[in-house]
Amino acid sequence: MRVLGVDPGLTRCGVGVVDGVPGRPLTMVGVGVVRTPADAELSRRLLAVEAGIEEWLDTHRPEYVAIERVFSQHNVRTVMGTAQASAVAMLCAARRGLPVALHTPSEVKAAVTGSGRADKAQVGAMVTRLLRLAEPPKPADAADALALAICHIWRAPTKNRLQEAHERARSTARAAPPVRKVVR
Amino acid sequence: MRVLGVDPGLTRCGVGVVDGVPGRPLTMVGVGVVRTPADAELSRRLLAVEAGIEEWLDTHRPEYVAIERVFSQHNVRTVMGTAQASAVAMLCAARRGLPVALHTPSEVKAAVTGSGRADKAQVGAMVTRLLRLAEPPKPADAADALALAICHIWRAPTKNRLQEAHERARSTARAAPPVRKVVR
Repeated sequence: MRVLGVDPGLTRCGVGVVDGVPGRPLTMVGVGVVRTPADAELSRRLLAVEAGIEEWLDTHRPEYVAIERVFSQHNVRTVMGTAQASAVAMLCAARRGLPVALHTPSEVKAAVTGSGRADKAQVGAMVTRLLRLAEPPKPADAADALALAICHIWRAPTKNRLQEAHERARSTARAAPPVRKVVR
Repeated sequence: MRVLGVDPGLTRCGVGVVDGVPGRPLTMVGVGVVRTPADAELSRRLLAVEAGIEEWLDTHRPEYVAIERVFSQHNVRTVMGTAQASAVAMLCAARRGLPVALHTPSEVKAAVTGSGRADKAQVGAMVTRLLRLAEPPKPADAADALALAICHIWRAPTKNRLQEAHERARSTARAAPPVRKVVR
């Protein structure tokens, strides 16, 4: 499976694409950062994030998109921008019918380091090791995006099957008229 | 000028279009609510908000989009959804090159009722009066969207000119090489 991980942000939106299945060595397909100028108007910045994400989706054709779940206990200003950038990423994925998964920062840290409270350096070191890179991807947002993709691949088997079954059931329930059992 | 006001939300996103200029009677062009099912996946809900806003933009062709500025002092869960819905609205406007303005709830209340601390009923009553409607638009989100559009029309003359001059200056500064004065 190929996953695009997105560490959402307005100033720096980390993006990383990883190929792999659980229990096998993983491959990094690409990593980078979508940046938008801090002095631009908010709507223009969101447009730039959209263009950036679209380019990554076009280039790498991931099957899943994993995005960091945004919490609001942090700095209020930053969180709003992060929430808005993540909305744009979700929208881009949903338009292509790609399944979107949100993972919390501690889920991601726990997945790649074994501890939900690991620091940035530890996450960067593990991403480097797991993807057999020459050095940790920089900036940290890029490494975090790869960690999100790895987390998704490793958590995926149960989670994705559950989610897909759930969505299938829901769309069937909506699309089709109520099924009546035929009693012969 | 024709303004689309958007009171962002995931469950109910109020939309209202108003035609007018300061100092002249205003005309309501349309009002409604874009709804998304609370049980749908977040990315699907954002997609539904996008489709709804696009439809309003296609149908009514506003020249400006005014969106309520989201603050995070309210309920944390709601605010994230509101921020994300507002991101989608901003994105739809920016894609069409429409200027986007954000107005705070108190700016809107002050514009239509004279008091920044007016309640919903008061805002609804003034919107009804200013647009010469038979009864207050329902739900409150729809009335708020109209109030946003009215606020924008009334605040526009100075604010828009300033903003446009600022953007013009900025894009000129970026696009063109530095201008040198020719000394003869």
